[in-house]
Amino acid sequence: MNKEKIHQPKIALRGELTPPSPIRKLAPLADEAKRKGIRVYHLNIGQPEIKTPEEIMEALRNYKEEVLAYGPSMGIAELRQELVRYYAHFDISLTLDDIMITTGGSEAILFALMAVCDPQDEVITFEPFYTNYAGFATMAGVNLIALPTLLENGFHLPLKSEITRKITPRTKAILYCSPNNPTGTIYTREELLMLSQIVKEYNLFLLADEVYREFVYDGVIHTGILTLKEIEERAILLDSISKRFSACGARIGCLISKNHQVMETVLKFGQARLCPPTIEQIGAVAGYRVWDAYLKKIVVEFNRRRDVMCEELVKIPSCVFYKPEGAFYLIVRLPIDDSENFARWLLSDFSLDKKTVMLAPADGFYLTEGSGRQEVRIAYVLKEQALRDAIRILAKGIEAYNRRR
Amino acid sequence: MNKEKIHQPKIALRGELTPPSPIRKLAPLADEAKRKGIRVYHLNIGQPEIKTPEEIMEALRNYKEEVLAYGPSMGIAELRQELVRYYAHFDISLTLDDIMITTGGSEAILFALMAVCDPQDEVITFEPFYTNYAGFATMAGVNLIALPTLLENGFHLPLKSEITRKITPRTKAILYCSPNNPTGTIYTREELLMLSQIVKEYNLFLLADEVYREFVYDGVIHTGILTLKEIEERAILLDSISKRFSACGARIGCLISKNHQVMETVLKFGQARLCPPTIEQIGAVAGYRVWDAYLKKIVVEFNRRRDVMCEELVKIPSCVFYKPEGAFYLIVRLPIDDSENFARWLLSDFSLDKKTVMLAPADGFYLTEGSGRQEVRIAYVLKEQALRDAIRILAKGIEAYNRRR
Repeated sequence: MNKEKIHQPKIALRGELTPPSPIRKLAPLADEAKRKGIRVYHLNIGQPEIKTPEEIMEALRNYKEEVLAYGPSMGIAELRQELVRYYAHFDISLTLDDIMITTGGSEAILFALMAVCDPQDEVITFEPFYTNYAGFATMAGVNLIALPTLLENGFHLPLKSEITRKITPRTKAILYCSPNNPTGTIYTREELLMLSQIVKEYNLFLLADEVYREFVYDGVIHTGILTLKEIEERAILLDSISKRFSACGARIGCLISKNHQVMETVLKFGQARLCPPTIEQIGAVAGYRVWDAYLKKIVVEFNRRRDVMCEELVKIPSCVFYKPEGAFYLIVRLPIDDSENFARWLLSDFSLDKKTVMLAPADGFYLTEGSGRQEVRIAYVLKEQALRDAIRILAKGIEAYNRRR
Repeated sequence: MNKEKIHQPKIALRGELTPPSPIRKLAPLADEAKRKGIRVYHLNIGQPEIKTPEEIMEALRNYKEEVLAYGPSMGIAELRQELVRYYAHFDISLTLDDIMITTGGSEAILFALMAVCDPQDEVITFEPFYTNYAGFATMAGVNLIALPTLLENGFHLPLKSEITRKITPRTKAILYCSPNNPTGTIYTREELLMLSQIVKEYNLFLLADEVYREFVYDGVIHTGILTLKEIEERAILLDSISKRFSACGARIGCLISKNHQVMETVLKFGQARLCPPTIEQIGAVAGYRVWDAYLKKIVVEFNRRRDVMCEELVKIPSCVFYKPEGAFYLIVRLPIDDSENFARWLLSDFSLDKKTVMLAPADGFYLTEGSGRQEVRIAYVLKEQALRDAIRILAKGIEAYNRRR
């Protein structure tokens, strides 16, 4: 090869293509606002204002080992054992070998994509989707194909024929999230059976992100992917303690599959990265020993926050949304021209009583160019009073934004 | 697309190609031996028998927050600030923006490969190499090209012309580790200047894994990549607290570069995975406040363990090795036919006084088929007495293995 001229080497295309997080990219503006003494209500990120179970914090504090040593690549057996018990409550029968502990649900997503896809392979998902699917797909060299779901349809799934039309010889999997982030939608059992039919007919994997499993309101029924026995070998479950135990900073998740080849493969990936963090796994064990009692309380609390959020949002003229059935997010269409501009403006040019709100512009949750331009994702993770105040400020912000110039 | 017959969907080729860890793949055999009441000396894994600094453990225990919340994607500022101070001791001047905290050195390697390579791009390294480079390369779709280094040459680098001969239009970077895992070699300043010349001439990145920076013996000088000012924009440093603070289970590392595009790109990857574990970052802050005093003690200890190891190994007939200059590993050529067979046999068929040893077969540290068949990597991480006993048992094991049948 000829010597090239001396200049800077170039970043990989996948680096350029990886989208910055729509949830986090405005963080510098928020920091700046805070420096100016403005209180910022974070409606942009799913960091619950809920105490982590005291049992988890106690377990962390009680770590007595003298050496903070490597753990097993699959995760510690005690935690996998607790997970076997936890899933048994949902009529899902697992063995330790079906479960790999991951560094957050994040790593579970990345490993699942890498296990079922080679570079250039395709995975079908539904937009708006959890924005980091796009990041992980780009990192893994996977082409994410996003089928639109519509606010008017409660963000439920498209018709089977619309989905199968997108399947090509490079399609390896369908990836979905239910209860859904960012829409709050819970897919019905019929919808899941439809997906299950498709993956059987087209010989695909089905990847289910169920990190919001318990966050279900109004008696809606959530169907877990692992209860669909007929696709047991095709199902990969992605899970996490981040939301379940308000322990986002622990970085403990898991990947579960009854497909031995999948588990062998993700174990090899897991061996490369050695192990998930040790101490938080011990914390998670303590969490799963009290999950039921803890969640009963916090789901009631989130149900209330959802109701408060909706109650306040309906007061905003021309604000359109679908009442979420689960999780703690919703997509809201606002009477504004461009939600990213608006979100930036709220942080850099607006405040009311020295307070403002931070939103996640929704276009980052869509792959289709131009989609979500008037929408934002709101995480209703704040306490009731803060939530009411935040939406009041948002309403005033919309007025002021549309009056400017 | 036509419907396919219903059968199991296939794992990705990259899954099949990812090698199982030669350090960890024999773990089930070791577990089995332990179940039979046999004590297994772990010479296979770099998990030091050294106490983690009490300051780190105290910091973990003193975590008082009520919510275990997300941290910044770049890592907490306090830790990045401590790292600025730490590197200043090595005459390396950094700003917070040059440093991203990663989930272990593992994530730093993966992110660096993904940032500089698209799928099918090539990275040159030197075999035997840290085995997980191969895993991460396969996960990232990167072709790792390994140039042999030789035991007879102390595993020092090949000639410049041998390296440049491997460069193609798809080559994006050279990746090296010094002090080296698995060989214990420290590349000389001249060798690093040679690499630096190559990356300038061919417009490549240079990725340096310096996690064993302080583990240097006999007054050998280690040259840090970031002291080579002329390639500042091409250098990416991969680092970790795992070995420095005997804190392998913390999963805290970092990626450092003065190249803004690199840092922007890895930040986007980092945003996708949200953040590294929160509590261990606070632990790492405490560690970096006492690093100098702590390391002075443990490096003396490892120097001693190295001497003990070499003292015992020379007693084994026909055992060939190169006295390591740094880190805490060495590659040893043993008078056996196949080191993987031998390592398996030691765990499943051999014991002396109810004890045996676990080795890492070296072929997993080579890409070239057939290389390392008679070699093992030994981590001299055990205390002196255990180390002497382990090598005594190894010697007897070699005799018995060659006498069998």
